[in-house]
Parts: sequence; C-alpha cells; structure tokens
Amino acid sequence: MKAEILAVGTELLLGDIVNTNAQYISKKLAALGIDVHFQTVVGDNEERLSQAVKNAFGRADLIITSGGLGPTEDDITKETCTKYFGKKFVYDEKALEMLKGFFAKLNRKMTDNNLKQVRVPEGSIVMYNKNGTAPGIIVEDGNKILIMLPGPPRELIPMFEEYAEPFLAAKQEYTFVSRVLRVSKIGESELENRLIDLIDNQTNPTIATYVKKFEAVVRLTAKAKSKDEANDIIKPVADEIYRRLGSDLYAEGDTTISEVTCGMLMERGLTAAVSESCTGGLLASRFTDIPGISKIFVEGDVTYSNDAKMRRLGVKRETLEKYGAVSHEVAEEMAYGIAKAAKTDIGLSTTGIAGPGGGTPEKPVGMVFIGMYYKGKVKTKELHMVGNRERIREKTVDSVFDWLRRTILAEEEV
Amino acid sequence: MKAEILAVGTELLLGDIVNTNAQYISKKLAALGIDVHFQTVVGDNEERLSQAVKNAFGRADLIITSGGLGPTEDDITKETCTKYFGKKFVYDEKALEMLKGFFAKLNRKMTDNNLKQVRVPEGSIVMYNKNGTAPGIIVEDGNKILIMLPGPPRELIPMFEEYAEPFLAAKQEYTFVSRVLRVSKIGESELENRLIDLIDNQTNPTIATYVKKFEAVVRLTAKAKSKDEANDIIKPVADEIYRRLGSDLYAEGDTTISEVTCGMLMERGLTAAVSESCTGGLLASRFTDIPGISKIFVEGDVTYSNDAKMRRLGVKRETLEKYGAVSHEVAEEMAYGIAKAAKTDIGLSTTGIAGPGGGTPEKPVGMVFIGMYYKGKVKTKELHMVGNRERIREKTVDSVFDWLRRTILAEEEV
Repeated sequence: MKAEILAVGTELLLGDIVNTNAQYISKKLAALGIDVHFQTVVGDNEERLSQAVKNAFGRADLIITSGGLGPTEDDITKETCTKYFGKKFVYDEKALEMLKGFFAKLNRKMTDNNLKQVRVPEGSIVMYNKNGTAPGIIVEDGNKILIMLPGPPRELIPMFEEYAEPFLAAKQEYTFVSRVLRVSKIGESELENRLIDLIDNQTNPTIATYVKKFEAVVRLTAKAKSKDEANDIIKPVADEIYRRLGSDLYAEGDTTISEVTCGMLMERGLTAAVSESCTGGLLASRFTDIPGISKIFVEGDVTYSNDAKMRRLGVKRETLEKYGAVSHEVAEEMAYGIAKAAKTDIGLSTTGIAGPGGGTPEKPVGMVFIGMYYKGKVKTKELHMVGNRERIREKTVDSVFDWLRRTILAEEEV
Repeated sequence: MKAEILAVGTELLLGDIVNTNAQYISKKLAALGIDVHFQTVVGDNEERLSQAVKNAFGRADLIITSGGLGPTEDDITKETCTKYFGKKFVYDEKALEMLKGFFAKLNRKMTDNNLKQVRVPEGSIVMYNKNGTAPGIIVEDGNKILIMLPGPPRELIPMFEEYAEPFLAAKQEYTFVSRVLRVSKIGESELENRLIDLIDNQTNPTIATYVKKFEAVVRLTAKAKSKDEANDIIKPVADEIYRRLGSDLYAEGDTTISEVTCGMLMERGLTAAVSESCTGGLLASRFTDIPGISKIFVEGDVTYSNDAKMRRLGVKRETLEKYGAVSHEVAEEMAYGIAKAAKTDIGLSTTGIAGPGGGTPEKPVGMVFIGMYYKGKVKTKELHMVGNRERIREKTVDSVFDWLRRTILAEEEV
C-alpha cells in the first residue's frame, strides 16, 4: 500500500508550529510496512486542499489527513476531502451524544457551530474522540482509503492507536514487530564492530543501529504473518546481542539511563544523595523526575561556591587550594561528604568546567570529575566532553547514572 | 511572490526526523511577506522529486529545497531539481578550495565523491557553507527562483540568513519587522481585554497574541518600505502596550523569565541561594543554566526528606509536625534557612505536591508553597497548578522567578 500524509493548517505554513504529526504517522506507517511517498502541508484553503487530495489519490491508495475537523469556518478538511468520493453527509448519533456530554461536563453551553463536527459521510467509520470534540473518520471506497484525524497531537495519537492502526494492520498481509535495545557508553562504530557478522547477514529480522545524544540504539524489526511469529523470529538474534553486549546493553524499549538506574536503587532500597557543582541541580532533578523517588533520594546539594563545598560537604580548604575545585580530590571529598551528611548508601558528585567561560589550558571546558561513594569506598573518574554548556551538563549526568548502574551490577557479580 | 518548500529525504518519510527546516523557512518567508502555499516532503527518489519540482513550479514562483546536496549516491537534489532549467554544470573554484581546506583541517583524506558537491549550474549564485561540506545554490531564470539548502539545520540556518534572506528581501517591495513582547502571569483572555481597542483597530502594525506554557506573547508586525520606517510604525503601539501592561510585561525578544530574572540579579550583584523540595533541583539548574551565574549563585539544597530540611535549613521539627512539609510555614523556614546558611541576599524555597501520587483532599496534587527571603523579610505564596509532574515543577520554577522579578522591581519603586 502507498500512502500520503496531508497535514491541513495555515499555522503550519506560517511556521507557527512544527509538523510533528507527519513524523508520528510516518513512523507508525513504516512499522506497518506501508510506504509513504509524500508528506504534504496545505493551508485552510478549499481550492488548494482539493488539488492536494486529487494529486495524492493520483499516486497513492491511502491518504491520512490531520487537522481541520473542528467547529470553525476554517475547518474544511472533512467537506473538501470527501468530495472526491461524492458521499452524502449524515449526523452520527453517538458522536452527538459524546459532544453534548463533553460540554455538559465543562458546564459550558454548546454553540450550534459545534454540530458540524458530528456530520459524517454515509457509510464511513467514525473514530470517536475521547480527548476533544471532533471525531475522526475513515472513508473507504474501492481501493482508496481516506483517514481523517484531528490536529492536536493529544487527540490524534490516541485516536490513531485505537482505530486507524488496527484498521490498517488488518489490511496488511504481514505484520512488523520491533524491539529496541539501548546501549550505553560505546560508540556506533564499536557497536557495529561487535555486531558486524549479524548485521552483514541480516534479512529477517533487520538490524539497524543509531546513535543518540548519550547512547546507541539497536533496532530489530521482524516481518511475519503474526505478532507471535515475528517475536519468535527476533528472539534468537536479540538473545545473541544481549550475550555479546553484556552490561553495555542497559535496557530495552522506551526508557532512559536515569530511569533505569533509579529503578535499580528503588528495587534494592539503596538510598542516595548527590552533591553537584558543574551540573548545578540537573543531577538532582533527574532523580526527582521519577515519581516515588522520595523513598530513596534523601538530598541534593548544589554547592556552587567553594564556601558551600566546605560548609555543606566538609571539603577541606587545603584540598581546594592545592588541587582546585575541579579535581579528583575535590570530587572524592564531595561524594564522601554528601553520603556522610545525608547518611545514605550512595553519594555522588560532579565538578567540572561546563563553559562557555572558565576554561584554562590545564583544565579546559568539558573537563569534569565525577565521584561516587558506595559500600564504604569512594572512587572518582575524569571525563572529557565536547559541546555547549547544556550538552556537557547532560552528558555528565548520564555518565554518572551509567557509572552507578555498572558499579551496582559489578558488585553483585562478585 | 508565492513559495513552496520542498524537503528532500527518506529519513523524513520514515518518521526518523521531524521537519523543523520547513518550520524555520516558513517563519522566515512569512516575515519577508512571501506566501507559502505548500510544504512537501519527498524521498531520495529521482522520479518523485522531478514530479514534485514540476508540480511546485506549476503553482509557485519560488521553490526552496532542503537536503540532498551531500556527496553520496542518495544526494540527488541538485541534479534533479535543476533539470527544470536545463543548465550546464561547472566546478566552482572557491567552493572547491573551501572543501579541500575542510578536509585538511580535519586531517582527513578527501575522497573523490566529495567533488560532486562543488559542481554548480552555470550562472547560479553559490552559497558557501561555513559549517559543512555542501554549498547551497540559488538558480534564477525568468520569473522562477530555486534555492537549494543543505539538510542539517546547523548548516541550513546560517546559510539562509547570510545569503537567501537578503537575496529574497531585495526582491520584495515591502519589508516586515516584528517585535515580540513577553508577558507573565496573565492569561490570553485578560491580555486581550487589556488590549482590545488596539487589537480591534489594528491595521499596520498587526497585533497578535499567543499563549505559551508559562507566559503570553504579543507579536507586533509592521509592513513598510524600509526597516526604519517599519520600526517607526511599531514604536507608538509598542509604547502604549508597555504603558498598559507595566511590570506584567517582563521582556522583549527571544528570552525566558529565568534568564531575565538572573540577569537582574547579576546586574545588581544580589547573591542568591535556593532550597527545593517538590522542584527537586530544577530551580537550581535553571539558575546554573546561565553562564557566569557563579558570581551570584552560591548554593542550592534539594532537601527532599524532612531530615534534610531540618539538618540543612534549620526547619523546626514542630513546624513539620504541626503544619506538614507542604505548608506556608515550612516554605518560610526553608527560605530563611537557606539565606542564612549561605549568607545570601536572597533565599528561595519550594515545597508542594508534584504528583502523580502523594495528594490528599486537603493538599491535592498541584498545591505548592513558595517562599522568599529578601531584605530581611520572608514571605510565602500558595500556588495551585494543573498538569503532570513535569508541568507542575516547571510552572513552579517559572512562578518563583517571576515573583522574585516583581519583588525586586516593587522594592526599587518605593
């Protein structure tokens, strides 16, 4: 099946918003094995929208639109796009009831222009909207399919997943299943080296590697007649990759290194506290992003000044004077100091030059020391990073979480 | 002039990346007074790209492409799009020199396929690339213009601004100038009420209001024969809006409430320290996002546990027991405690329920207390917010910065 995505909205043509819907739908169609040949954006203009629909059906079997289903004069997608099929419009009773319920719940009067939203082409499939007022619609005629979705992503995404995705999956002879394996600390080329024979011999599943900000990712995609069969095809390859990558493979699916590491601490009941200089609160805020973290996260100290490092963490004046704030020695005293002050199992520290100013030939921008107190011992590590202030701080925090994860795993192996 | 944006790249059709280039170019063209009627995305496929160019020139005078100018087999934009004009290709000497220099600097050997990038249609304008290897090209023939830009935003944006923008501006009879006024704390409808007569009578400049996460924004856009003239047209309207909004108008242009408030502290040499519970390090990290903040930012304490609140900030056990950690009284003692411990002019605090768990009927999710020590006095404020954990934490932090900004301004007025 060939598809075309048609986003409708003048705000897209003015650059007021970015077309994330096209990306979302494209990704979903790729996973379903449906080829997307064009994405088009057109304004709220009847003539140009008609032209776009005609063009698209001239070269594709499936059009998916987003936007223009609302109650205002500008919302012309439904009327304009279905002209192609020449269908009669009727009111959908269930959609009307839901619409009335929506306004009643908000204690707002429903104005008459809202009724327009629940008029649908006869014989179409109505996709009821739990997150807004405008239902979506699927029209199928001969070998042409038109799927119309509302514009706001918080309405479009759940509606696509509930209705459009199973509708399209049922039309596909094959199903596609993907697994995403997340790998920390090793670069894409080393990752490829370790998997090169698997990659060279790939057919089904396919194996693709990507590099993200902090991590590398391996995506395995299998094509089969059923989900179970696809899972069976992926499993031996995934198992082999797990075996080869060991603890470099830190998680699977949609997660992050901070989420994984915090999950490990919560599972084990290990309490933690952090002391930060260059990361300035980012490390603490990654911990506290996690709901329920208060069970194990006791305290974070952003000791930006030397005075605060001495006062709060017991870093010695001599250490600061002899080695400077950005040093193994200070990272060590910070990690020890925060663990002792907060009486936690784990103490973490960061101190470095995040830039853009403050670098010297000996201690350039991007030089960071991180420290860890765990099981009565303190260790430190020197990092060198490139990029702007934000990137250096983010990479430092990710490195701290990964180091802690590896440390806990290594201790458990002993 | 009518324009069409044509992004070339299979990775866009697979949903691997989002088309931010189209948004950027659309916004720029809107500011130049050039209408964009379509944005199209097409893969690295010669036949479909040719078809897209033909379609686009059938309905527009200007096509701007992004992507597909690189050295690989897949990079076909230049050859395919210029077929429309039927021009001969020649090597551009300056681009060739720059390309050689680029590889020399990286100490890498230049492979022959790179030469393809410096072949340009005869008589075209070459846009030299300071941030990558592929130059961009402007081809003009009769009343049709084709502007080809590289795909990576870090190359596309500076190239557009250096070459394409002045090239297009010179073709426009009118120029457009915008000013963006940022307003904190008041909603869009109240903002419209305060400006309603100006909005109703707008012609030139136009006045548009938008609501963002934390703030509202007023955009004034004037159309004139020159920038100076446009600025003169905007000025009296902007002055009137400044007068009406007073301190609710917190800044102009591309900035944030934390940047503005931190700037005020640095200008005045006011030192600050923060103590956080529900925001968990986010407030400190917003301070430390600002380069040079170490001059005035002394310390941040993420006192997540009650124990840390007592130990670090001197919050009294009785206060915690009598009022609970989420209360005016604890916010007050936290703000006072951190200012005294760090010996700063300003002490800030946050304590609240960020959710998703932890809410009760008396203290629901979204209830937050913030505290401020300034000039020997402590005050507190109760906030109620809706949204998820992330949104509640972010809105709390923005509110703290805005409250501090308003407090400093009010003190100075006395």
